[in-house]
Amino acid sequence: MALCLAVMPGAAGAQQADDLNRIIDEGFNRSEVMQTAEHLTDGIGGRMTNSPQMRAAEEWTAGQFRAWGLANVHKEGFNFGRGWWVRSAHAQMVSPRPIALTSIPVAWTPATNGVVSAPVIVAPMMKERDFDAWRGKLGGKIVLISMPGDGSEPGEPAFKRLTSEDIAKRDKFTPPDWDPAEVEKRLANSGFARKLDAFLKAEGAVAWARISQRDGKLLHGTGNRFRVGDEALLPGVEIAAEDYRRLARLAKVGPAPVLEIASDVVFDDSDHNAYNIVAEIPGTDPKAGYVMAGAHLDSWAAGDGASDNAAGSSMIMEAARILSKLGIKPKRTIRFALWAGEEQGLLGSMAWVDAHLAKRALAPGAGAEGSMEQTQRYRYRFPILPQPGYGDLKAYFNIDNGSGRLRGIHAEGNVAAVPLLKEWLTPFASLGANSVAAQSTGSTDHVYIQAVGAPGFQFIQDPLDYGSRVHHTSIDTFDHLKAEDMRQGAVVLAGMLFQSANSAKTLPRKPLPTQPAPTDPFEYEDPSEN
Amino acid sequence: MALCLAVMPGAAGAQQADDLNRIIDEGFNRSEVMQTAEHLTDGIGGRMTNSPQMRAAEEWTAGQFRAWGLANVHKEGFNFGRGWWVRSAHAQMVSPRPIALTSIPVAWTPATNGVVSAPVIVAPMMKERDFDAWRGKLGGKIVLISMPGDGSEPGEPAFKRLTSEDIAKRDKFTPPDWDPAEVEKRLANSGFARKLDAFLKAEGAVAWARISQRDGKLLHGTGNRFRVGDEALLPGVEIAAEDYRRLARLAKVGPAPVLEIASDVVFDDSDHNAYNIVAEIPGTDPKAGYVMAGAHLDSWAAGDGASDNAAGSSMIMEAARILSKLGIKPKRTIRFALWAGEEQGLLGSMAWVDAHLAKRALAPGAGAEGSMEQTQRYRYRFPILPQPGYGDLKAYFNIDNGSGRLRGIHAEGNVAAVPLLKEWLTPFASLGANSVAAQSTGSTDHVYIQAVGAPGFQFIQDPLDYGSRVHHTSIDTFDHLKAEDMRQGAVVLAGMLFQSANSAKTLPRKPLPTQPAPTDPFEYEDPSEN
Repeated sequence: MALCLAVMPGAAGAQQADDLNRIIDEGFNRSEVMQTAEHLTDGIGGRMTNSPQMRAAEEWTAGQFRAWGLANVHKEGFNFGRGWWVRSAHAQMVSPRPIALTSIPVAWTPATNGVVSAPVIVAPMMKERDFDAWRGKLGGKIVLISMPGDGSEPGEPAFKRLTSEDIAKRDKFTPPDWDPAEVEKRLANSGFARKLDAFLKAEGAVAWARISQRDGKLLHGTGNRFRVGDEALLPGVEIAAEDYRRLARLAKVGPAPVLEIASDVVFDDSDHNAYNIVAEIPGTDPKAGYVMAGAHLDSWAAGDGASDNAAGSSMIMEAARILSKLGIKPKRTIRFALWAGEEQGLLGSMAWVDAHLAKRALAPGAGAEGSMEQTQRYRYRFPILPQPGYGDLKAYFNIDNGSGRLRGIHAEGNVAAVPLLKEWLTPFASLGANSVAAQSTGSTDHVYIQAVGAPGFQFIQDPLDYGSRVHHTSIDTFDHLKAEDMRQGAVVLAGMLFQSANSAKTLPRKPLPTQPAPTDPFEYEDPSEN
Repeated sequence: MALCLAVMPGAAGAQQADDLNRIIDEGFNRSEVMQTAEHLTDGIGGRMTNSPQMRAAEEWTAGQFRAWGLANVHKEGFNFGRGWWVRSAHAQMVSPRPIALTSIPVAWTPATNGVVSAPVIVAPMMKERDFDAWRGKLGGKIVLISMPGDGSEPGEPAFKRLTSEDIAKRDKFTPPDWDPAEVEKRLANSGFARKLDAFLKAEGAVAWARISQRDGKLLHGTGNRFRVGDEALLPGVEIAAEDYRRLARLAKVGPAPVLEIASDVVFDDSDHNAYNIVAEIPGTDPKAGYVMAGAHLDSWAAGDGASDNAAGSSMIMEAARILSKLGIKPKRTIRFALWAGEEQGLLGSMAWVDAHLAKRALAPGAGAEGSMEQTQRYRYRFPILPQPGYGDLKAYFNIDNGSGRLRGIHAEGNVAAVPLLKEWLTPFASLGANSVAAQSTGSTDHVYIQAVGAPGFQFIQDPLDYGSRVHHTSIDTFDHLKAEDMRQGAVVLAGMLFQSANSAKTLPRKPLPTQPAPTDPFEYEDPSEN
């Protein structure tokens, strides 16, 4: 307590410190964070954007915000694409011997319309030039398009917590990585999956199968043909690595295995808009701007989207519940966002940035190109055109790294913000959340908030088994969430929101980003690479 | 070479050293060990004792031995029980929302005869006294009999090789653990599963489900009601931990989930005998006895029985192939055994001991009690009655710890054998197999050979991911076998057989075991434990 008083002296400071302890009391003694997570996962299940499950989650979360007394609860729609879900699916090898295959339809690929029975052909293709070798050989086949590879040898523990040394390594300024040429190099082969799909269709293949990217019978089922007008042509399935490799070996030593595949999937074109869910605790000073926390509500559907990201969504919602229940009247408005379309390229938060912060030369949702490509290109479309309210966002906190406890926060290269972030974390040092690491992080919804110069931050979290086995997989289920960690996360988040909403000081901002000069103007490209 | 010559001087020694190099040449340059393993796993699949797959494996392995020129290739039958296999199976939750459940029928439980549809009830029962709480509540239900527990937190690497320190820890004499009272204590609850099955049947339950012992969607399906006259009454399924826990949580917060289960399993009563496969390279000296290597050919059927134990079987077969191909004429006969019924209690090797080495007060296969119990009690049924040929077995080498390379051998408490075992391993030091560890090991087919006083040994192997994820699971497949390790294993085994078959010295034996005195005659049992 003495420490808090030292940081926030005076009568207002004492009240603030009391409120922090009330937050901790509510968040640890009367927590509802796991009930929230349980409903999102067990009750609703995997929430692919625009699927019936995501629609249910939109309604339920908005209803919870309202029930908890949040203000201005609403949905913000943006153009996304088709809804898609799996009614039922199965795959089996029927010869040379019967084996049930562990498999899942690839997202947004079409239904098989009953059982497809066909021999496999192992035809791994990585580049367009690989097509020639297989032309004329794929008709009537289920094409195994991946290299089978070898069994993994996991030499690191699957479940980990961060040591102080691990965290210290992240306290390293990341130079801006803006370089369109590098991005274009990475994207050079990005349209290949579409070309392959078209090639397979033209050759008369009946379906394709890929190997799971993790072994141990885990599945993912991720796919990206959700745009209207970009429909996939052939049914695709992901097969567990052990099963896929067995098929490939059998095909090599004997007659091609025959598979039966049935993919009863459903497209929903009733509404191509996806929706972010937004709720607020209104601030007492209309000119003080707002602070915000967000997590994506959408997920993949091999599991129940628990660690990715019912965990973060539930911590956001729980922070909202705690602050609302305590009757906190912050100076600044506290806004909560549950994003959609994150898994397809941070599309929900990108649309929100476009609507509320700044526009870019390339609008979200525009263009015939696939969304992942667009997302990657979005960062270097200049100029950035600030919109009314650009400066009002004083802090954005994102949670999207599973259910591990918060160990601190990434300053995301905004090193001038480090002292204030540290100050706000000070009360939570004994809860394990005491580090500010300079490093920039990617792949989630603070990225495009940061990218237009607004102060957006991703927390540091204990990784647990997020990367090793649950992220996007069939075991992303409630039982792999850690309740104690999530209670801590909601409390720390509520505390950060509370302090940033009331602080006399606001976080330093980065300058409005403008088109940078090339990193190395004297570099020549090696022509042999093209 | 200098080293080998130093160990085995003289003309015969030089020939022997040449032969060791020929074994290495054949085993590394023209290895067939992986082809053998591939046929057993991919080609035949899981080989539960007395299943059609095991019958196919019996025929195929005997045929391979014959094709490689082995002598006296034959099957040795012993009383086992019913064959059982899964034609097809599935389970799904149909309400409150549709989810395919990752599941497998429990071995030797009856078919559902079509689709069983029923609500679940979570009724974990561990002891007979738990029955009262559930009496009258189970009719028409699928009974979830396990505690759901929590998600695992695997803090150790799944894949490991042994360090010198790991091996050094095993070099510790294990005092004999003979203590009937301890065994009976362990077995006190061993008949419970039968009683539970009968209770559930009497209560009108339609099926039962248990949780997988590992999470991460791995399955096992192990069961033990294979004896004629000991038939299970109700269909049982094992459900992946993530799916089981979700069912239990949903049942707690809302209406009981309804499942559909279909178990199309087949019993085969055409032959209740199981068969060990035996083959030989005849010795030149009929009075010199024989040496032997063995591994169990049977497996569970969730996967293809690769690491457990197509790996060991293939190394045994490859050693036979190498020695036969090289035209080795050993002084002692070299015998190869592929055991059946190991997974149900070392039954094949136990039957072989009974037929060829020594009989006990309790014969294998006798008694109405379950086999696992019998197996555990077998060791303390005295007296041991040596049979003709008891002293002829000069060395038995067992492989049953996955596909990891051989790092040496366990002396199994026979410390007098350490020097000679070390001598025989000396040529293989640079292949990584140079350690002799005094420790006794259990749970596989050398146990009952050791237990009657014959010199039986289990190799030390790198564990890889055997214990962590492949042992008995749905990912016990060929792709998790390590080819380089298995080639090394076959070579080292062939070398050990070759040397022990030709050595002027034979391994020291333990005395014929007689009934030991109680470990601590002054110990009183705590009456409160009963």
